[in-house]
Amino acid sequence: MSVSGDFGLNGTIIEFAVPYVVFLGDANDEAFAKTALGLIQWRRENCAGQVRLPGCKVDAGVTDLSVAQAKGAGVRSLIVGSAAVGGAIPPHWIATLCEAALLGIDIVAGLHMPLADLAHLAEAAAAGGARLIDVRVPPAGLPVGSGRKRTGLRLLTVGTDCACGKKYTALALEREMRARAMKCDFRASGQTGIMIAGRGVPLDAVVADFLTGAAEVLSPANDADHWDVIEGQGSIFHPGFLQVTIGLLVGSQPDAFVVCHDPLRKEMLGCPSFLLPSIGEVIERTIDIGRLTNPAIRCAGIAVNTSKMPGDARTLLLKQYANEFALPCVDPLIDGVAAIVDRLLAHTQ
Amino acid sequence: MSVSGDFGLNGTIIEFAVPYVVFLGDANDEAFAKTALGLIQWRRENCAGQVRLPGCKVDAGVTDLSVAQAKGAGVRSLIVGSAAVGGAIPPHWIATLCEAALLGIDIVAGLHMPLADLAHLAEAAAAGGARLIDVRVPPAGLPVGSGRKRTGLRLLTVGTDCACGKKYTALALEREMRARAMKCDFRASGQTGIMIAGRGVPLDAVVADFLTGAAEVLSPANDADHWDVIEGQGSIFHPGFLQVTIGLLVGSQPDAFVVCHDPLRKEMLGCPSFLLPSIGEVIERTIDIGRLTNPAIRCAGIAVNTSKMPGDARTLLLKQYANEFALPCVDPLIDGVAAIVDRLLAHTQ
Repeated sequence: MSVSGDFGLNGTIIEFAVPYVVFLGDANDEAFAKTALGLIQWRRENCAGQVRLPGCKVDAGVTDLSVAQAKGAGVRSLIVGSAAVGGAIPPHWIATLCEAALLGIDIVAGLHMPLADLAHLAEAAAAGGARLIDVRVPPAGLPVGSGRKRTGLRLLTVGTDCACGKKYTALALEREMRARAMKCDFRASGQTGIMIAGRGVPLDAVVADFLTGAAEVLSPANDADHWDVIEGQGSIFHPGFLQVTIGLLVGSQPDAFVVCHDPLRKEMLGCPSFLLPSIGEVIERTIDIGRLTNPAIRCAGIAVNTSKMPGDARTLLLKQYANEFALPCVDPLIDGVAAIVDRLLAHTQ
Repeated sequence: MSVSGDFGLNGTIIEFAVPYVVFLGDANDEAFAKTALGLIQWRRENCAGQVRLPGCKVDAGVTDLSVAQAKGAGVRSLIVGSAAVGGAIPPHWIATLCEAALLGIDIVAGLHMPLADLAHLAEAAAAGGARLIDVRVPPAGLPVGSGRKRTGLRLLTVGTDCACGKKYTALALEREMRARAMKCDFRASGQTGIMIAGRGVPLDAVVADFLTGAAEVLSPANDADHWDVIEGQGSIFHPGFLQVTIGLLVGSQPDAFVVCHDPLRKEMLGCPSFLLPSIGEVIERTIDIGRLTNPAIRCAGIAVNTSKMPGDARTLLLKQYANEFALPCVDPLIDGVAAIVDRLLAHTQ
């Protein structure tokens, strides 16, 4: 029996229903529950509570619910928000997942193995009419990229390296735009982002030929004053991943981009013989390549992770970058991103 | 039963055994037998003959053999060198393929469906100990790209567009190098190239995250004076496929590249609103990006498809390009590629 094919797909992007509960299993360390904590940080309004097994040492700070209580509260999805060692689902978690699936609650996970490979869970999902949604598995039917201009406005977060704040910067920008009643959507391109947004495409798992097409599908035509805030991937100078970065850039055809940077990092993640590029090099290369599908592409700001720097040093560094590039320069999680949104508005009104 | 997983894989590239026969089915038009004709043009020495069904109107110009005769002649692979309308294998071809598989002859094809999905053929292959090799299916276990420098010399063919002679230019370069007793290998990155070479990786079908890694596997470390001549893909300015081109470029870390160009083409294949880039733009962008993993990257020549131009015009055009770029400029199938190999040798000795 194969149930993974069309599950979790709505058109050509992954999409699941809210409200949801986060399932923490019996996680004993917050490090294993990063996904759940991220969901609640950014989408508290979609989370009805947490389902925990005996022995769980992690508390996501939301209401404890049993599966039956979750169903009673109208919960539509259960998100496996905790990873066990090895990335698989431990056997003693499965009964709870089956209970939810039998009640028609969709199960969402980002594991290395398809949920449908768990035979009991597949049977429960079939019996309960629940979907099994693997956020690592790209949707079927992705097109080849066309490069055609779409209506609406787009912002892409890019980075001097992998894992330097692109997802959280995009989420912070969406939150700031929403606070100003601007039309906008966060567009998730990785598995954690998809769990937070409730939809998206895991771009790194898409077959190479369809990468630009997947990025086009991810940020479709929209109202002229609507911003898609697109989660970036990799880095345009990373020797292992630049193809993902560039496919996403060209398919997204962004009007604006924000460069994310970790000032304490010296070498590219996983590639110690490659020095980190400068912010200026990233701006220049992103514009060079992005112009192919959007000649008006411009840098709208710099987001710096200063969490490990003393206050004086961080203030000095942000000021230095702001002067060097004549751009708003912030730590999104400390300063917020209002300065960047101000700049966007100044250039589009 | 699933037999597609490890079939046709040797380490992490696809590889099949020679000599082979080409199977033409009952093709009634050479357009359906392009693959078979390409195989024989470039690897006549590996082809023991052709297997044809009654009604076949195409003749590849090699000995007609029955499956039994092929087995008797030591044939180890049968290549489905003819595509039927729709890309599937017609039911009336299957008995012949099963006959070969039962005799232990490996079956090689580049269809949209896995060979193993043909139940009778899968059974015959299991019974006869034959492999079913899908050249569209990337090998398992491809790594993430590391960017580390490998020993040996590499040349990549690139293009102003898709489908402008990159494969044949690479094959012509390999042939010229072999004629000079240079150490070299053609490295195939697409399905037809893989059939010609007998091995390779179908890069366009690789998951995006592993594209640079696949290109690294495709041209492994080698003798210091050994050239890998790598078949390029797409174009660095193609809005649908540039991510494949760039992943291949950075993973290949070429010392030299040759730009392939069709002077009669005005717009990018499949993207009519995108004008073809100039040869100069392709050289510049290829060097800009290729420098990431090989700072010494240089352009070694220009290959122009002049087959549809009158003699005077072609001579003039080639001379014009040669002057403009100070590079050897040839039509590989008319002029040969000796001038380009001369240039390579002048720069590496």
